[in-house]
Amino acid sequence: MKSVNVGIIGFGTVGRGVVRTLLSKKKLLKERSGLSINLVKVADKNLRQRKGMRVPGKLLTKDINSVLKDRNIDIVVELIGGIHPAKEIILKALTLGKHVVTANKALLAEHGEKIFTVASRFRTLLGFEASVGGGIPIVNVLRKSLIANDIEVVYGILNGTSNFILSKMSDEGYTFRQALDDAKARGIAERNPKLDISGVDSCHKIAILARLGFGLSIKPKDIHTEGIEGLDPADIQYAGSWGYAIKLLAIARKSGQKLDVRVHPSLISLKNILASVKYEDNAIFIRGDMVGGSLLYGKGAGSLPAASSVVSDIMEIAKSIGEFKKAKDFFRFQFDTGVKKAREISELFTRYYLRFSAIDKPGVLAGISDILAKNKISIATVTQKEKKAGQPVPIVMLTHKANEGKLNKALERIDKLNFITKKTVKLRIVR
Amino acid sequence: MKSVNVGIIGFGTVGRGVVRTLLSKKKLLKERSGLSINLVKVADKNLRQRKGMRVPGKLLTKDINSVLKDRNIDIVVELIGGIHPAKEIILKALTLGKHVVTANKALLAEHGEKIFTVASRFRTLLGFEASVGGGIPIVNVLRKSLIANDIEVVYGILNGTSNFILSKMSDEGYTFRQALDDAKARGIAERNPKLDISGVDSCHKIAILARLGFGLSIKPKDIHTEGIEGLDPADIQYAGSWGYAIKLLAIARKSGQKLDVRVHPSLISLKNILASVKYEDNAIFIRGDMVGGSLLYGKGAGSLPAASSVVSDIMEIAKSIGEFKKAKDFFRFQFDTGVKKAREISELFTRYYLRFSAIDKPGVLAGISDILAKNKISIATVTQKEKKAGQPVPIVMLTHKANEGKLNKALERIDKLNFITKKTVKLRIVR
Repeated sequence: MKSVNVGIIGFGTVGRGVVRTLLSKKKLLKERSGLSINLVKVADKNLRQRKGMRVPGKLLTKDINSVLKDRNIDIVVELIGGIHPAKEIILKALTLGKHVVTANKALLAEHGEKIFTVASRFRTLLGFEASVGGGIPIVNVLRKSLIANDIEVVYGILNGTSNFILSKMSDEGYTFRQALDDAKARGIAERNPKLDISGVDSCHKIAILARLGFGLSIKPKDIHTEGIEGLDPADIQYAGSWGYAIKLLAIARKSGQKLDVRVHPSLISLKNILASVKYEDNAIFIRGDMVGGSLLYGKGAGSLPAASSVVSDIMEIAKSIGEFKKAKDFFRFQFDTGVKKAREISELFTRYYLRFSAIDKPGVLAGISDILAKNKISIATVTQKEKKAGQPVPIVMLTHKANEGKLNKALERIDKLNFITKKTVKLRIVR
Repeated sequence: MKSVNVGIIGFGTVGRGVVRTLLSKKKLLKERSGLSINLVKVADKNLRQRKGMRVPGKLLTKDINSVLKDRNIDIVVELIGGIHPAKEIILKALTLGKHVVTANKALLAEHGEKIFTVASRFRTLLGFEASVGGGIPIVNVLRKSLIANDIEVVYGILNGTSNFILSKMSDEGYTFRQALDDAKARGIAERNPKLDISGVDSCHKIAILARLGFGLSIKPKDIHTEGIEGLDPADIQYAGSWGYAIKLLAIARKSGQKLDVRVHPSLISLKNILASVKYEDNAIFIRGDMVGGSLLYGKGAGSLPAASSVVSDIMEIAKSIGEFKKAKDFFRFQFDTGVKKAREISELFTRYYLRFSAIDKPGVLAGISDILAKNKISIATVTQKEKKAGQPVPIVMLTHKANEGKLNKALERIDKLNFITKKTVKLRIVR
């Protein structure tokens, strides 16, 4: 029986799941693949995750370099996350002819081009299924299953922490702060949840999906990204009364030669299947010219879902190299789908939800709608909500499709009107 | 650039989609894979599908053997369907060292074991993504993405024609006959829709998924299969009033050392995401010990969705053989997950929907419930519906969990009662 040797760098949440799986499911994996996967080293500067697991002591080391230097190791699994030293570790492994599996979305989003190029040059394979969607096989579905499709759009809920918070706010009436505290207490949010709630994590993931779906190399900084930190429960409630849920969506949509790519809290129809994706669950909708609309739904994070994807990458590589040790991934990471570059958010043409905060006096609606009209923004529906004591009057509006650049100009002027008391809330409607 | 030669046998609905894709998307596929896929022969005894397509005449042949004999052909795509001569064609191709892609669910369900064994012996690859779920990548998700999971259950809507008919009946008040005629008129149902509406098509597909998910080789004849032909719109309406949709589900669920595998119209909660899968769409729910609950949703049939899967198989094989021509698929088709055999339907322990048709007279409910009680079947809720002139009285019931064998005994006795006018309707509740 062929055997393949694996070394793991990073013994955190995901690393723990992978180690547990490779040790406890060796027989199952052998049964299914005919291959023996040997875990030969687990390296981390901090080995406290060992607690509660029966890991043979001889596997463990604090010396990361010993994994890279070990000539018997065929596949290096990088699970420390972040840019440095993960980038250096992966590049070193690839240039040494080792195949690499990683779950590192930040690194692939920021430096994917470099890493894919090096992998290709050294004829080594790179698996990264766990970098987007946890246990959801979105990476391989885009790379492989839908390879013959012209992808029209990929969008979805890619961050479980944010979705948990939004579910708590919409279904259980929590404030943002209460929901975040609850997520932390349950271990769903990290102690520093900034990457999740700011939308940056979703931004990294959509950068990877933009590459897989549209062949476009795009930097996270060029993706318009808004998080959920500023979201007011009132907006969730008003949106709901009009038949919309608010979800943090990451979107990549072909728009002529440009890619409309963005991350922001979005109003989606309650009839959209994504509206029923609750708590930590993730879901990704894809439309391809051949398959039509498709959806993948599952657990977007967590030790075992991510480990499931990491181990599937290990097995795929192991199968490829089982006989020849060397292999070449023919999949290209840049290819021409007619998409040349990302589109500016100011070019967006969509429907908007607006909430104005105004002093209760005559002429307010006239003042607002006059400025909107001058900027060619047409109102679809408007409601003046009941005023709470001591609060400004909320005027809530859905627009027809409008240009974001023009809308921003209009809002800038409106927010300077003397009866406007707070910055206007602007949310985009997605369909 | 490496090039791989493909021959297609079968120029029907799916064949047409594959030919069109390989001819029109050669550049896209080359861009994404770095491989040139050359369509070198298209064989069918009947070439009328050529109509309206620009297929170079030199590709076309009525001689199926010429594809098998062509030493330049690396991959044979079998798309004629049915058992004979598809079986002989595939076995011949495999023994000649050619890799095979097929969409033939009936053949794989009936003779999968033989075919997989021959493929493995001759070190040839076999792709069959399109055999289940059309454009939904369920085969590769089970074979590859979830390889490290102990699968607990796979169930879903695997037949678009039946789901279309059920949607028409539940959402638009059609009778079965009206819905079937509409499906035929739209080209959704074939002229002879027997395989679809009898559940046999779903049975073939769940036989394949049982093999992939649980390593069990099971014959279609050993899978309890009921279709939707007998379904009365009244039952859809009554089920709806209790919060259930009726869907034709194919189910494979681990139950100790046995596999609970069956196909039948089922009541599922309207809150179950599968209840919102409408018309021709398919969806498959999988629960694995690592990934938890996951769902794949998309188009389960049609020329282009199926062609998308066939071409993805072609590309996967092409990538594997690009450098070495020979390859071995390490994936085993029989492996030990602790599941030894299929469970008899009489062992099923679940909740049931029952509709009795009775003459309107005193003592009816007492008579029925007495027999149920003696067979340890406990009633969860019961409604006696209003009688329509000249019709028997419908008594509709949901039971608590009960054993199917005992229930069948009870129903046999009940149906012999002198006030029972028709065979009692029995549907299973799935959750």
